[in-house]
Amino acid sequence: MTTIDFIGYCAAFLTSASFLPQALLVIRTRQTEGLSLLMYTLFTLGVALWLIYGLATRDAPIVIANGLTLTFAIIILLITAQERLKQRRVSTKS
Amino acid sequence: MTTIDFIGYCAAFLTSASFLPQALLVIRTRQTEGLSLLMYTLFTLGVALWLIYGLATRDAPIVIANGLTLTFAIIILLITAQERLKQRRVSTKS
Repeated sequence: MTTIDFIGYCAAFLTSASFLPQALLVIRTRQTEGLSLLMYTLFTLGVALWLIYGLATRDAPIVIANGLTLTFAIIILLITAQERLKQRRVSTKS
Repeated sequence: MTTIDFIGYCAAFLTSASFLPQALLVIRTRQTEGLSLLMYTLFTLGVALWLIYGLATRDAPIVIANGLTLTFAIIILLITAQERLKQRRVSTKS
């Protein structure tokens, strides 16, 4: 493995793994006010396309990295959407 | 351009552009309680490595996509770190 390959693998590991603490934080606290729902909608869609791209080009690192990221992104997106719906219901009632 | 290339470009555009609404949200509201500081530390580092990787392999789409994402990620990271420091000072005083 060249130094450049190694940098690429480190980059893929860091950008994928970084979403784990965010996913754990929203699962634990369900505090999503600061999270952009638009960001996680676009991001989840983008990562899903990366996964399709990786499968189509048979690129294992892209498939593994984006498969992991997609799992975390979907968790964050679903909890954020759920909390926004709850808030909307509460503000409609009051 | 093949369909697979097109999917790759759409993926790169979506995952990069998605951080713009999140950056604008934290600039406007400075509401960062729900954001994971660990996530943005690891993510910013990862995107910086992707940028180095793109420059080393002279891959323009990787350089452009990660250059943009790095800008947004740094903004989100700095504001989140700043707000955490403020909160720590307030809780030490009280």
